[in-house]
Amino acid sequence: MTSAAPIEFWFDFASPYAYFAALEIDDLAARHGRTVAWRPFMLGAAFKITGAQGLSRTPLKGDYARHDWRRIAELKGVPFVLPASHPSNALPATRAYYHLELRSPSEAAHFAKAIFEGYFGGRLDCGSAEDVLALAVSLGHDELDLQNGMANPLIKERALRMGEQAIGRGVFGSPWIFVEDEPFWGWDRLPMVERWLAGGRPG
Amino acid sequence: MTSAAPIEFWFDFASPYAYFAALEIDDLAARHGRTVAWRPFMLGAAFKITGAQGLSRTPLKGDYARHDWRRIAELKGVPFVLPASHPSNALPATRAYYHLELRSPSEAAHFAKAIFEGYFGGRLDCGSAEDVLALAVSLGHDELDLQNGMANPLIKERALRMGEQAIGRGVFGSPWIFVEDEPFWGWDRLPMVERWLAGGRPG
Repeated sequence: MTSAAPIEFWFDFASPYAYFAALEIDDLAARHGRTVAWRPFMLGAAFKITGAQGLSRTPLKGDYARHDWRRIAELKGVPFVLPASHPSNALPATRAYYHLELRSPSEAAHFAKAIFEGYFGGRLDCGSAEDVLALAVSLGHDELDLQNGMANPLIKERALRMGEQAIGRGVFGSPWIFVEDEPFWGWDRLPMVERWLAGGRPG
Repeated sequence: MTSAAPIEFWFDFASPYAYFAALEIDDLAARHGRTVAWRPFMLGAAFKITGAQGLSRTPLKGDYARHDWRRIAELKGVPFVLPASHPSNALPATRAYYHLELRSPSEAAHFAKAIFEGYFGGRLDCGSAEDVLALAVSLGHDELDLQNGMANPLIKERALRMGEQAIGRGVFGSPWIFVEDEPFWGWDRLPMVERWLAGGRPG
């Protein structure tokens, strides 16, 4: 529809709020003639700078977050399970994503959504290379090719650099959306992102 | 309209997101036949439990928050100044509120809104007993009565206990809304509060 740049969707695969956003972001962008660049990164590196911990591990906040995740799932009518392994270290899924993206960004985005749905559906661990490979194979990807990709130093480096790039641009939470360089943090800001895309920005 | 209990609006007077919510909360409640119980508390006590700092003082998060506050003010078309003293310790305003509330909850709520508008309009410091008294006098309250109230051990105790009650119920941020016992954290959850009040709760 337009030639505007994709909006950027930064996230950690183990982030429940990113999961909820992942279910909506492509449709939201499409309503405004935009595509989405999916950008997994390891949130832990940003936490080291802000001094935050994962929500699940923070007193008071963890209890609220668990209640809130269930509430959002019910309000939206989508599945939600907090995996026993939560919060997983999503490095295997992140590396797999960046390898697949070299082949086809749209197939990689499809894979990313399937990782989210699998992890928060209680069917796979995004921190398990085995689970990640099995999912990719079920989507038609070549197991050996992906295995090699995940072990490729260039892919490992890219996964690392993307996280550094995120922090360099001020990202400290997940999900995080950039519309051009305008930053939006959090699932609950999707309505503001939508308003922004519709031209409702001030000034 | 109905006999339902007031919704509870918990906040720290020095919280920018609480200021934005304070501008909307009475109208929001009224749309659903509800009133609002204004509940100032000292957020610092909750921060000691969660390990958080004020947003302004947190790396990365502080920069985003300052951008976000300006953006919200522009989107909503409301004034917003970050006071030089920010974040103030709002104990004087909090004590004044609980003294005024004994006389008249609705006048106390009016006072609370005026504190927010004065502080984030750059006209007063909610951490200055002098500024707080001057504002109250301009609203028609008796200076000596309020001065005595703010120094009254029972009022000091009440301000303290309200904060402990908040933490005991899981409150760790500002603004915080309870609809009956359903908790909502943050200005950006007002649409969800509204949906909840409209009966859109799941289950």
